[in-house]
Amino acid sequence: MFKKITIIGMGLIGSSLARVIRKKKISKHIIAHDKSSTVLQKVLKLKIANTIEGSLAKSVLDSDLVIICTPLGTYKNIAITIKPFIKKNCIVTDVGSAKLAVVKILDKIFKSNIAWIPGHPIAGTELSGPEAGFATLFQNRWCILTPVNKKNKTSLKKLIGFWRKTGSRVQTMTPEHHDKVMAITSHIPHLFAYNIVGTAANLESSTKSEVIKYSASGFRDFTRIASSDPTMWKDIMIANSKEILAMLKNFNNDLNVIKKAILKKNSKKLYQLFTKTKKIREDIIKAGQDISKPNFGRES
Amino acid sequence: MFKKITIIGMGLIGSSLARVIRKKKISKHIIAHDKSSTVLQKVLKLKIANTIEGSLAKSVLDSDLVIICTPLGTYKNIAITIKPFIKKNCIVTDVGSAKLAVVKILDKIFKSNIAWIPGHPIAGTELSGPEAGFATLFQNRWCILTPVNKKNKTSLKKLIGFWRKTGSRVQTMTPEHHDKVMAITSHIPHLFAYNIVGTAANLESSTKSEVIKYSASGFRDFTRIASSDPTMWKDIMIANSKEILAMLKNFNNDLNVIKKAILKKNSKKLYQLFTKTKKIREDIIKAGQDISKPNFGRES
Repeated sequence: MFKKITIIGMGLIGSSLARVIRKKKISKHIIAHDKSSTVLQKVLKLKIANTIEGSLAKSVLDSDLVIICTPLGTYKNIAITIKPFIKKNCIVTDVGSAKLAVVKILDKIFKSNIAWIPGHPIAGTELSGPEAGFATLFQNRWCILTPVNKKNKTSLKKLIGFWRKTGSRVQTMTPEHHDKVMAITSHIPHLFAYNIVGTAANLESSTKSEVIKYSASGFRDFTRIASSDPTMWKDIMIANSKEILAMLKNFNNDLNVIKKAILKKNSKKLYQLFTKTKKIREDIIKAGQDISKPNFGRES
Repeated sequence: MFKKITIIGMGLIGSSLARVIRKKKISKHIIAHDKSSTVLQKVLKLKIANTIEGSLAKSVLDSDLVIICTPLGTYKNIAITIKPFIKKNCIVTDVGSAKLAVVKILDKIFKSNIAWIPGHPIAGTELSGPEAGFATLFQNRWCILTPVNKKNKTSLKKLIGFWRKTGSRVQTMTPEHHDKVMAITSHIPHLFAYNIVGTAANLESSTKSEVIKYSASGFRDFTRIASSDPTMWKDIMIANSKEILAMLKNFNNDLNVIKKAILKKNSKKLYQLFTKTKKIREDIIKAGQDISKPNFGRES
């Protein structure tokens, strides 16, 4: 399908891609680049790439598919560095969680000379680094592609085929729509999780130790998301700030409705508010996007 | 230990208690009461109690331990109904998630004639009903007791012994302190989860279906808590409204700090805010209050 694939950034997503590419034999040759030589040494030990390449420019030479798997804040420099070394007909894509802002930057750099197709697999865990990856990460998850240049039809087809081979289902949409949907489904949940756990982290140490002790009452769920990679997430919040702040207004308005109902001890209203939420989880389970076991299947 | 134990309310917690009492042979006789005859028929089929009793008053006759496992809003009527039928030296306890408001009501009704010791096991799932219970629910979880009457020393010792036999660790504290800690660890997380999922539930149906489709990006985690029993949770929000609203102010102040950092694209500040949260999860895992596997151990 692709003779050579270059993965830039060998963290959770990059290393999971390397694993699934090998497992499903999507490409004969994987070139792994990371700015950290420690990470590249780990990749070597894990035997998940054919070649490790410390030079970013060299890593894309002769490659048929380049996948950028680094935090959004690094895109601009990466694009400028690799542009002169990308061969004809090579597809360049990424896995970033916010699209519009970075797509604009890369469009300007790549112009129409390079088949640049932005992407975002809706998959991950709270862990980071090459050891955290696994080959089934994309299984049954959606991958969103936000193609902007209509000239890239053949490349788009190839890229869709690539993601399907990783186990993903593929959906295309505009970067604007992607950012709106992700603000609700991902960015705001992370923001609230970071906020709730952050408030707890600020408590005096005796109270904090109690929060840890009694966290099974709900709090622990939020700590999973709030232990995601801070470098990655600060970049997402900034890249999609417009949609996030707009959506935050909606959430705040709804929060005020709940607050008012609590203040007025309006039992009926609270019952009504807390009833409509159950169906959403049922639909998520039906859609195969979460497991039906209570407590996410955790023991007790 | 207790010859006869009465469980009032055979939902998730009540039925889990019945199961563990049988499994660990804590009592020879379990009397199950529920206002719903359908629930009692289910209890009969599940064979988790020795006797089912449709009359609340009769259910406590001759019992040595009465455990109230119903929503907080039902406590007052239950206390008034059972008071004349409770035998001497019987211990009355509960499992409610907010303490001060209901403790005050029950103190007035029971006065010092009855050994009333409020309790709260920090355990549960998002499911409800007698089928949802299981014997290991309390294993390695904390149970908080908030004794108010110092005359009940012997009874308190017995009750602590009871909870230890269920697999729980036991901690005593004042109702005031309990409500403050639970506002952070349980009530506010539930409030935010209900709020986030509620906002999504209000979206137009095309967007809503996308939220479900891409929920693995973070949103799905919040839907678990937000599918908890609405009757139980409206009562908790009202019973602990003072602490919840006070704590909400702290969270809002911290949220404004994050919002400002996003608005000003303050990368350093966001990095700093998102970094301090990871340790809390590590501490929770160390304390045995969550599993260390990524994604709560869910497959992909």
